[in-house]
Amino acid sequence: MRIIVVGATGTIGKSVVKLLANEHEVVRVASKSGEFRVDMSHKESIENLFKEIGRFDALVCAAGVARFGPMSELSDEEFQLGLNGKLMGQVNLVRVGHNYINDNGSFTLTSGILSQQPMPGSTSISMVNAGIEGFVRAAALELQRGVRINAVSPPWVKETLEALGMDSSNGMPAERVAQAYRASVEGTRSGNIINARDFT
Amino acid sequence: MRIIVVGATGTIGKSVVKLLANEHEVVRVASKSGEFRVDMSHKESIENLFKEIGRFDALVCAAGVARFGPMSELSDEEFQLGLNGKLMGQVNLVRVGHNYINDNGSFTLTSGILSQQPMPGSTSISMVNAGIEGFVRAAALELQRGVRINAVSPPWVKETLEALGMDSSNGMPAERVAQAYRASVEGTRSGNIINARDFT
Repeated sequence: MRIIVVGATGTIGKSVVKLLANEHEVVRVASKSGEFRVDMSHKESIENLFKEIGRFDALVCAAGVARFGPMSELSDEEFQLGLNGKLMGQVNLVRVGHNYINDNGSFTLTSGILSQQPMPGSTSISMVNAGIEGFVRAAALELQRGVRINAVSPPWVKETLEALGMDSSNGMPAERVAQAYRASVEGTRSGNIINARDFT
Repeated sequence: MRIIVVGATGTIGKSVVKLLANEHEVVRVASKSGEFRVDMSHKESIENLFKEIGRFDALVCAAGVARFGPMSELSDEEFQLGLNGKLMGQVNLVRVGHNYINDNGSFTLTSGILSQQPMPGSTSISMVNAGIEGFVRAAALELQRGVRINAVSPPWVKETLEALGMDSSNGMPAERVAQAYRASVEGTRSGNIINARDFT
């Protein structure tokens, strides 16, 4: 399969690329480096990306920024950052990529555990992640030609917690999180929110 | 209690006003008529609304537009309509209203069944409704002074189906949907997504 990985240089993305590259042709996309670049918050950038890459069999998105912080301190711009980037950015990868994906292809987006298990400071991220899940459930009902869509919901990732200087003992190594993305790409499910904890 | 009802002239809103007005002071807000007016898609309009109304004990929002239609036909503007109006509009009612709400007050927002039970054509609405639910779960963890927040998830409303010329035999009458809002306002729960079907 020819698989586009958006966010290929991120903590999860790198592990997804490594895992999928064993058996597939992986097209690496990132915001600031990589074979191809995209600014997910601008639809024109997404349109240009697919024009450059052309047809593909699967797209994995492990990119998209949303801001963590107390609701009373998050600015309007910080809320918009998550809505434009992580939420509509991923939705637009599907809306545009849908014209380039081969029959029986798949889209795999990324939500996150805060969607269903929030914590203080997660209002914007929980909103965005839940929105992705709602979109995925609905989009699965409309995609034609055998095209599938799922979201992977990763827990806290070990490497991310380490980078933040936090206790990483309960974090899941990125290479294990990557297994959930492979299950979406290589499997047959659609419209699912895949809890990465199910692949430990 | 002094209760603000946003969307007071809508199908659900009218029934909520009628039910709550028996025992409370209800402040009616709508986009185009009513005591007070608000354009939920503009935060300045929301800020002005609370400056006019002042302190309150509970806010119910049964307003917010999002567009139904095939994903491949919905425009960027139609996706934004739901994000700005129904999603960030309701989030901003909380972000701003939070400075005016009395101790032990409550916010009750509106999601909808399409969040969890999508249908073809619901990508934008499912995304928006799920986003509201994610926000509500998270915001409940941050609100101080005993302030609560819930979302009511209404099923298809009988009067709405009738207005659309659709089969309304499985629709729930708005006056029964209103019971779910009252349970949020007068009860003690917080962070809940209240399925209006539980109040039949």
